[in-house]
Amino acid sequence: MEDSNYKKLVDMITETIYKEIKPGEEASKLFSIPVEVSNHHVHLTRDSLDILYGKGYELTKLRDLSQPGEFASNERVVLVSPKMKVIEKVRIVGPLRKYTQAELSITDGIFLGLDLPTRISGNIEGSQPIIIIGPKGVLNLTEGALRAARHIHMTPENAESYQVKNNDRVNVEISGVHGVIYKDVVIRVSPNSKLAFHLDTDEANAGNVKETTLARIL
Amino acid sequence: MEDSNYKKLVDMITETIYKEIKPGEEASKLFSIPVEVSNHHVHLTRDSLDILYGKGYELTKLRDLSQPGEFASNERVVLVSPKMKVIEKVRIVGPLRKYTQAELSITDGIFLGLDLPTRISGNIEGSQPIIIIGPKGVLNLTEGALRAARHIHMTPENAESYQVKNNDRVNVEISGVHGVIYKDVVIRVSPNSKLAFHLDTDEANAGNVKETTLARIL
Repeated sequence: MEDSNYKKLVDMITETIYKEIKPGEEASKLFSIPVEVSNHHVHLTRDSLDILYGKGYELTKLRDLSQPGEFASNERVVLVSPKMKVIEKVRIVGPLRKYTQAELSITDGIFLGLDLPTRISGNIEGSQPIIIIGPKGVLNLTEGALRAARHIHMTPENAESYQVKNNDRVNVEISGVHGVIYKDVVIRVSPNSKLAFHLDTDEANAGNVKETTLARIL
Repeated sequence: MEDSNYKKLVDMITETIYKEIKPGEEASKLFSIPVEVSNHHVHLTRDSLDILYGKGYELTKLRDLSQPGEFASNERVVLVSPKMKVIEKVRIVGPLRKYTQAELSITDGIFLGLDLPTRISGNIEGSQPIIIIGPKGVLNLTEGALRAARHIHMTPENAESYQVKNNDRVNVEISGVHGVIYKDVVIRVSPNSKLAFHLDTDEANAGNVKETTLARIL
């Protein structure tokens, strides 16, 4: 089956399960949350994109991501650590943001020689230094490299169903064999979002996550 | 603190906690099991080493591993997948065994284009193909690449303390922040072993495992 068909199937299953869930009900404990894997990527400010890709440059869309308005861009950068280790072809995730940040896995961090803190996106103060290189320029940042805290995006309606609230930290189990229960998963509630559990590549691979994996809050 | 000092400290803590544990006691639920991370590596038969390093070649020891008699050797190999993706500098773990096997992480598997099954060491039937290259020759294997099932090595005495038996599958929690509870952890009991919870790099990084991380059976 093609990836996109898998995706549709998961969406269908999720929707079917989700429709049945009434707030606080036992059904809210079913595996009903789609799991999505984020490869390492960067977010950029307008100023950063100006430096890396040229003044006024506009990102072009490769594909939409699950969260409304977010997209993987065709544009990529090179990351270099102060230890002169290099990761090439790191995608820029659009749209532009109020901060510039490189979201990396701990495996990436070990490779780069960086002791990455685990942070909610945007909370870059005191995170690790990183050099970002684009076709038109270089950013030599004293902070901005971090590991994103695993999190579940959901709407206020979802939050009511699952009986959680914004910034709660919960344990989350995934379906399938050789699975994992993730502790300290941050709940992120926003009207403009779509239900999804976001993991980095280490976390997904540790739990044997497949296209059809679903999650539940314990 | 140097790595070896960390290691001594963990050993000391573990021993102190462990001494206090009586079979089945509440103390057996404390974080008391050292966590060790296995990087990708290969095990070889006598025949395989003959082909890769020359007839009668003997592995030389880089350092002892925690399990009695096991060691990381100075000798390394190159792994190539049928999709022609390459991982260099993969260490041979000695002594020689009755099977030839490449233990890889799922991250490695994705990079190589291999759908790795999760297996107890030695159970290679139907696992993924891999080409192993040494300075004197090449092995083109139809099976042997797998992801090792996470497991806890322990003595029969440890097993009594923790009230588990060989081949049990248990849930294991680790200490520290941003942790993980690993499901399906295999208990491996043998008189000639040392208490240790073995994870691959994906699993360790997903759980933010540090030198001082300890585990407990739930």
